[in-house]
Amino acid sequence: MSTSSITTGTATADAEAFLRDFRSLSAIGETPGHGVDRQAATAADAQSRTWFTSLAEQYGFRTEVDRIGNVFALLEWTPGAPYVLAGSHLDSQPTAGKYDGAYGVAAALHAGRRLAETTNPDDAPKYNLAIVDWFNEEGCRFAPSMMGSSVYTGKLPAGEALAVTDNHGITVAEALDAIGHLGSGTGPRAAAYAEIHIEQGRSLEDSGTTIGLVHSCWAAVKYTATVHGEQAHTGSAVIADRKDALLGASHLVVLLREIANAFPGAVLHTSVGQLSVYPNSPVVVPSRVDLVMDLRSADEDVLASARQLLREGIARIEQEANVTIETAESHAWGVLPYQPAGVDLARDCAQKLELTSAPVFTLAGHDSINMKDIVPTVMLFVPSVDGISHNEKEYTHDDDVCAGVDLLTEVVARLCRGDLDGAQ
Amino acid sequence: MSTSSITTGTATADAEAFLRDFRSLSAIGETPGHGVDRQAATAADAQSRTWFTSLAEQYGFRTEVDRIGNVFALLEWTPGAPYVLAGSHLDSQPTAGKYDGAYGVAAALHAGRRLAETTNPDDAPKYNLAIVDWFNEEGCRFAPSMMGSSVYTGKLPAGEALAVTDNHGITVAEALDAIGHLGSGTGPRAAAYAEIHIEQGRSLEDSGTTIGLVHSCWAAVKYTATVHGEQAHTGSAVIADRKDALLGASHLVVLLREIANAFPGAVLHTSVGQLSVYPNSPVVVPSRVDLVMDLRSADEDVLASARQLLREGIARIEQEANVTIETAESHAWGVLPYQPAGVDLARDCAQKLELTSAPVFTLAGHDSINMKDIVPTVMLFVPSVDGISHNEKEYTHDDDVCAGVDLLTEVVARLCRGDLDGAQ
Repeated sequence: MSTSSITTGTATADAEAFLRDFRSLSAIGETPGHGVDRQAATAADAQSRTWFTSLAEQYGFRTEVDRIGNVFALLEWTPGAPYVLAGSHLDSQPTAGKYDGAYGVAAALHAGRRLAETTNPDDAPKYNLAIVDWFNEEGCRFAPSMMGSSVYTGKLPAGEALAVTDNHGITVAEALDAIGHLGSGTGPRAAAYAEIHIEQGRSLEDSGTTIGLVHSCWAAVKYTATVHGEQAHTGSAVIADRKDALLGASHLVVLLREIANAFPGAVLHTSVGQLSVYPNSPVVVPSRVDLVMDLRSADEDVLASARQLLREGIARIEQEANVTIETAESHAWGVLPYQPAGVDLARDCAQKLELTSAPVFTLAGHDSINMKDIVPTVMLFVPSVDGISHNEKEYTHDDDVCAGVDLLTEVVARLCRGDLDGAQ
Repeated sequence: MSTSSITTGTATADAEAFLRDFRSLSAIGETPGHGVDRQAATAADAQSRTWFTSLAEQYGFRTEVDRIGNVFALLEWTPGAPYVLAGSHLDSQPTAGKYDGAYGVAAALHAGRRLAETTNPDDAPKYNLAIVDWFNEEGCRFAPSMMGSSVYTGKLPAGEALAVTDNHGITVAEALDAIGHLGSGTGPRAAAYAEIHIEQGRSLEDSGTTIGLVHSCWAAVKYTATVHGEQAHTGSAVIADRKDALLGASHLVVLLREIANAFPGAVLHTSVGQLSVYPNSPVVVPSRVDLVMDLRSADEDVLASARQLLREGIARIEQEANVTIETAESHAWGVLPYQPAGVDLARDCAQKLELTSAPVFTLAGHDSINMKDIVPTVMLFVPSVDGISHNEKEYTHDDDVCAGVDLLTEVVARLCRGDLDGAQ
């Protein structure tokens, strides 16, 4: 590849083109609060996928959908060569912000557009280029999250993923088929991967840095828990006889926050985001509550101590609330490093573009966490105003957004050259 | 009315006939755990209503459905005379017991059958007789509870009740129409009312008493509460920044139990039976939780103190959990007495039948609470084994069940004679 895509003359036009396309994407599934609701394989998700394939084809890419609904936009400079993949996800949480995932796909699409325009086919890079919209990264309608990239990287069998059902009993296969996006095959063969995302935290904003060079993901453990009690009449049953599953679950939610507070310095994040009550009638003491517990830390020792506190707390709650609590670990991982050579490459690119950068952790999961296990991977962040995410108020300044696209373009160009080949 | 319905010769046959019909009713909407699920205006509720009308017609009654879906089985001895109503409700909570409500309708139907057989038309009682299945006493699918009797007694406008929607947006009118039970008119004119129910508490069983003579209902206050927070990413948002609506709601559930425990002697019952989380995704800090709080006591001063503790606690939780909590009183009543003459009448009947009896409170709501405000009303209890209710394990011994039918038959006979006329 002979030219850098970043030249002073085209910078303003590139930024304008990106912001125009991103605005049209943000209008899809827009909520009254100016966020988006594009849960996986819904009508709004389908619309965003059509936004992606239409623009990609307009920019000279060929598109295809694999067996789990990942959408690829392919640019083949060298027949038969593997692909550098760049992208993120277009699905969202309910009443979500417009940047989470969508920014990464739009940025990759524009990086691809610019590389398509500036690459001399007679001096083609080593690898071809594919922009990707991973299916169901959010995992709110269909669990688990990062479903598309988990299947792509062989961590989750496709058949198992396709059989997952939502709350209405609709399978992933049915939902994808209904929006015309149940494809086939396993997608292009990857040589490297790049993804850019909003930070969803405050560290870049607080330090006045434009680019986060993601070096590792926090360690995490997630549990599903079921609290078992006994149905009773809320009015007539004597308190001492009650086995109130919701009381037990409430103690558990409070306990998780107390455990976070037990470690000074905000080194542990804990939460319960999902909780369902049965039978959920105003006059029936609940017999069963299902919930999901999430504990994360950059320090594996802190996480181990937190897990111990949780076990002890659960035993205490079972006694005090007269319930039984079943827990099952649904996910657990230690601190997960990205290839250090990828961090170095991204730092070099940022320096070339005169963008400030700093190494950062990711606290959230991303499809790049799957991809880094099969190919050299670069993960980039831009700042989130006030660290707000999974919220309609999610915001990143246009300058940061456009700087990120510039950087991603440069990173992808180097990955296509093979600059990360062999990175461990 | 010239004869008592209770004669030694027919006692066994009456008991067998009742138990046979009650078994056929219990099979409708039966759950795997041998309880029932017959929520209002569902297919199972429709089946139980057909069970009622078919048997009633077989026993010589004419049936009709009023504008809010109350089913009446009418026996007109004296054209134009008002009716003694006797009954309860056939709808249930999800995974409920088979006695709650259903026993009262079946018992009233058999009391009616026996009175129809033993009454000499040439010596007809003062009042006619109507057995009633009140629509939607439970209020789990459609709020509020006691809907049918509230409309019948003029406490709830029919139009308002018919417009109430369930979680799927189906109105009461649509649901009743779908099962062919959207009737018309306002039902028969009442002269008196009698209802029998399982106690749903332990007091009769603990004292070895067969019949509870309900003299009053506990005072109660119910609130709907909404806890407002802010959506955030469960992984990346700093704990100090979070406004976790579920944490606030959990503190509230725990607070309610603490308030109950603050009053020794089990004089206060508190609970949260219903709680819904938004957006309820594993990786989103909840922005909103809606719940229903229920506080009940026989002592109005205790209830007033509890309400004060609740107000103070809510202010504390708002601070500690960084949320705001909106509450609205949805129901509130003081201790509600039944007519003392009705208690005396029921005690006399029990004595005549050599059944032990004791005056008791009802802690749960019943349709009789509405009816006592418009006509003299008798409310009777039979024991609940272990006080278990709103639970598939709900159980009352056959002897107690049959004794209750005998007693109700005697009470209704006297009400038809006009023995409670003028009771205040």
